[in-house]
Amino acid sequence: MKSAAIICKPDKGELHAVIPELIAWLAARDYRVVMDQQTSAYCVAQNVSPRYELGWEKPSFAIVLGGDGTLLSAARAVSRQGIPILAINLGSLGFLTEVPLTSLFETLAAVDAGTCPIETRSVLEVLLRRAGEIMERYFALNDVVVGKTALARLIGFDLHVEDAFVYSCRADGLIVATPTGSTAYSLAAGGPVVVPSTEAFVITPVSPHSLTHRPLVLSDKVTIRIQLREDEEGFLSIDGQVGFPITHGEVIECRRAPHDVKLFRKSGSFFEVLHDKLKWGQR
Amino acid sequence: MKSAAIICKPDKGELHAVIPELIAWLAARDYRVVMDQQTSAYCVAQNVSPRYELGWEKPSFAIVLGGDGTLLSAARAVSRQGIPILAINLGSLGFLTEVPLTSLFETLAAVDAGTCPIETRSVLEVLLRRAGEIMERYFALNDVVVGKTALARLIGFDLHVEDAFVYSCRADGLIVATPTGSTAYSLAAGGPVVVPSTEAFVITPVSPHSLTHRPLVLSDKVTIRIQLREDEEGFLSIDGQVGFPITHGEVIECRRAPHDVKLFRKSGSFFEVLHDKLKWGQR
Amino acid sequence: MKSAAIICKPDKGELHAVIPELIAWLAARDYRVVMDQQTSAYCVAQNVSPRYELGWEKPSFAIVLGGDGTLLSAARAVSRQGIPILAINLGSLGFLTEVPLTSLFETLAAVDAGTCPIETRSVLEVLLRRAGEIMERYFALNDVVVGKTALARLIGFDLHVEDAFVYSCRADGLIVATPTGSTAYSLAAGGPVVVPSTEAFVITPVSPHSLTHRPLVLSDKVTIRIQLREDEEGFLSIDGQVGFPITHGEVIECRRAPHDVKLFRKSGSFFEVLHDKLKWGQR
Amino acid sequence: MKSAAIICKPDKGELHAVIPELIAWLAARDYRVVMDQQTSAYCVAQNVSPRYELGWEKPSFAIVLGGDGTLLSAARAVSRQGIPILAINLGSLGFLTEVPLTSLFETLAAVDAGTCPIETRSVLEVLLRRAGEIMERYFALNDVVVGKTALARLIGFDLHVEDAFVYSCRADGLIVATPTGSTAYSLAAGGPVVVPSTEAFVITPVSPHSLTHRPLVLSDKVTIRIQLREDEEGFLSIDGQVGFPITHGEVIECRRAPHDVKLFRKSGSFFEVLHDKLKWGQR
Repeated sequence: MKSAAIICKPDKGELHAVIPELIAWLAARDYRVVMDQQTSAYCVAQNVSPRYELGWEKPSFAIVLGGDGTLLSAARAVSRQGIPILAINLGSLGFLTEVPLTSLFETLAAVDAGTCPIETRSVLEVLLRRAGEIMERYFALNDVVVGKTALARLIGFDLHVEDAFVYSCRADGLIVATPTGSTAYSLAAGGPVVVPSTEAFVITPVSPHSLTHRPLVLSDKVTIRIQLREDEEGFLSIDGQVGFPITHGEVIECRRAPHDVKLFRKSGSFFEVLHDKLKWGQR
Repeated sequence: MKSAAIICKPDKGELHAVIPELIAWLAARDYRVVMDQQTSAYCVAQNVSPRYELGWEKPSFAIVLGGDGTLLSAARAVSRQGIPILAINLGSLGFLTEVPLTSLFETLAAVDAGTCPIETRSVLEVLLRRAGEIMERYFALNDVVVGKTALARLIGFDLHVEDAFVYSCRADGLIVATPTGSTAYSLAAGGPVVVPSTEAFVITPVSPHSLTHRPLVLSDKVTIRIQLREDEEGFLSIDGQVGFPITHGEVIECRRAPHDVKLFRKSGSFFEVLHDKLKWGQR
Repeated sequence: MKSAAIICKPDKGELHAVIPELIAWLAARDYRVVMDQQTSAYCVAQNVSPRYELGWEKPSFAIVLGGDGTLLSAARAVSRQGIPILAINLGSLGFLTEVPLTSLFETLAAVDAGTCPIETRSVLEVLLRRAGEIMERYFALNDVVVGKTALARLIGFDLHVEDAFVYSCRADGLIVATPTGSTAYSLAAGGPVVVPSTEAFVITPVSPHSLTHRPLVLSDKVTIRIQLREDEEGFLSIDGQVGFPITHGEVIECRRAPHDVKLFRKSGSFFEVLHDKLKWGQR
Repeated sequence: MKSAAIICKPDKGELHAVIPELIAWLAARDYRVVMDQQTSAYCVAQNVSPRYELGWEKPSFAIVLGGDGTLLSAARAVSRQGIPILAINLGSLGFLTEVPLTSLFETLAAVDAGTCPIETRSVLEVLLRRAGEIMERYFALNDVVVGKTALARLIGFDLHVEDAFVYSCRADGLIVATPTGSTAYSLAAGGPVVVPSTEAFVITPVSPHSLTHRPLVLSDKVTIRIQLREDEEGFLSIDGQVGFPITHGEVIECRRAPHDVKLFRKSGSFFEVLHDKLKWGQR
């Protein structure tokens, strides 16, 4: 039996009408529907049933309604299982969620018919090692950021690629970004735009103390290692959403994850999003 | 029979002693030696024979003595035949020519013994099309630059990647660089450092009129097309060495060349060169 | 007797109707009207008389109709005499010419009534010295640019401020800009925005070869000296409009001119122009 | 009677020998010596007397031994009284403390003889207003930074200059820097170098969300106001040393302080420090 998951940003007024309609649309096409708690909240008043918690079974695809933030957390939740995502944008245009709510059912029909193109986006796998042992493991669709703590003025760290020492730097932080994340925090910190199909990561220092540091683009086949200098404390963030303190004794190891994120896309969309979001010139 | 080519920068005093010594070294190991006219000039007084013009036969490898500029022109000359290059640096450290003259014979011994590692560098193929027809064809190891003419204040051009329109821009110029060229003019214009093994090109605008333009990194599997706007005139440069005027009617088409440049390398050298040249920090 | 000068950009269709109307408006208020040749060309068919060449007498103010380029050349022509300028914008918004054609007569009425505020803009005086002797003297409202020649890859030059050596640099060029010019070429080359009332100049290198160079802001009370290195040739541009070749033997000396440019302004306009032109954020 | 204050960085081994020698030098020239607690700690073992706490009287000048950080806090402590400072550098060269320990007595002799030149540096006065009322008042020699809190991804704020709205921005933070502070955090965030004698401040956003924001240079005669957007929380830092949380309800008001910091200087030092610290090119 076909099934679809629905994942929503909470407290979006327009979804009170849309979600029950969406569930009905899917049910009419014999989809079993699973949803997260936040989505089920939109259905309470409408007596929609049955409701399932996400994770109950592996759906054929997931429909994510929200902004880029909602998609980032949804992608971390479902992409390891290879579930493709239809990301519907609510509100201001996102780099990742460029299908507007008004195109929901039209795009969904293409997904159901198997005619909607799927784009894959590379993912960063982040291991936090202490004394060689893996303490934590995360996946990032956008970026991994090693930043300073609230009170610190900057952090000092060493960067290695494979076994080669790259540099030692003092800065507000260091960003390791996927092509997808190149248009997020890395761009604000001065990094280049990396087209999603590029097999590369970009490492961008944030306000580095030395003027000679520049963003570094490198193959996504290598392993990147970051270590705070002695007596330093910092803060590790995953997609700007998950974070925890780190210290000198730990090594942050980044490499390409074995799985990609699969996104249903409008055709020709990447440069169009750049035009809209970055105001890149059109004649 | 083994053979080696020698290509030299002219008017370097230290080569008057080195070249005859190098030729003797090669002759003693049964190499047939071919050389360019500029190299033979170093041998005149010493009555060295025989001298051959480069191109006479396909040598096993080429020894290039000079700076990055000498290597760029030598690479365009010999790399299409797959001839690996040993680049010896005279004077200030180069990004490409990091083997110093003092290590010439030591490195040469490793080349002769087949133990010197070879690194490949991707090359840009540039086609100049008019009405679809190919008018010119060049190869660039560093970069292709579409620039303004001497009197113009800026040029306007359109950029396409595959069939997608990327942007229309007014600027001093536009640089399409290989990873090798990312540390040359593109870096001066604000582009990122791209590690040589990355399968990517970088497109960097020079002093763009709009603040929203940023360097763009993209897969080296795509085709890049640049076209001047109507009534515009510009200047196309290949590796900063070969150039000619261009107009609106022509399309500059860049893609990865079918051949790479092969360089004999010292091990672990790329980040070390960045430390030396860019003063990247070491603890 | 009151008099007004009119200076126009040529070949702007909308001026064929406006200029005779403007002359009539001025005549009705007892202004004697002087105009440049390009303005008189708009009047030929309409049999407007009398026509005067600009320079015939010193007018009370000048009306400049065109874009920023027209204003730059008009300012160099009339500002030394202390004549205030009403700059009317034709076409796309300019940094300098923000009064639209539709507000011409309304603003003119304020000028005539003596109620239109005047803003002063500092001007660069440029001396070209050879062996200490002054060879040329220019005034720039925007900037003085020392650039490379068409065929050169870069130029090398030394920068001094007063008697202090600042740096030696190799780059595409060097820009010395007034606050007014800070939003023109200097901004494209990475310079800061300098608010017009700031008593400062900004020196911005264009694509410098070394990563450590940064725009330099300094008091407009100092003298700036630029000299090409030995055997170098370059090109000196004034406001991107006037230019000529320079060589090592010459020193380009920049300091604040004894006169300012006086502009009739809409109130509160500088940051509003930044919002419009640079798309600076408004909530 | 002449008097001199001594202010030291704690725990610098080399000072155990220097401080008693310095006190003896001053005593031999009839100076009354005052010192802070940290300086007196260097004297305990040597039975030096008398020791005075800083603040006891107004000294003729202050000798500060440490790095830029020690000078920043000393300057905030003594500069309001108009006391000139002799800043002696321990360890790595500082932008502010360029006199090395080896030149201490030689420079001191010039200070004592009245022949050592004094340079003045402008200071920022920062008022924190709530409902118009002044809650806090600080002075900054380097910069005032409005930053995000530890957990936040960015902060949104509005910037006004005098009564004009400049922009609304979302960023990691915003820096208002004096010319002195232009080579500190503002430079790391992409700001220009501002020569100390320039009567200007620079406002530099840190990793702004929008690509169009640029550092802004403006006259030091204006008042700058920053206000967090509704529901935002941030952190205000003075010279990177003093800080506290701020919220939407407060307005941070910056203007030039009525007093300057007076520094005894080596002659011709500013550009020389840039050469040393920024590696600006010398031929």
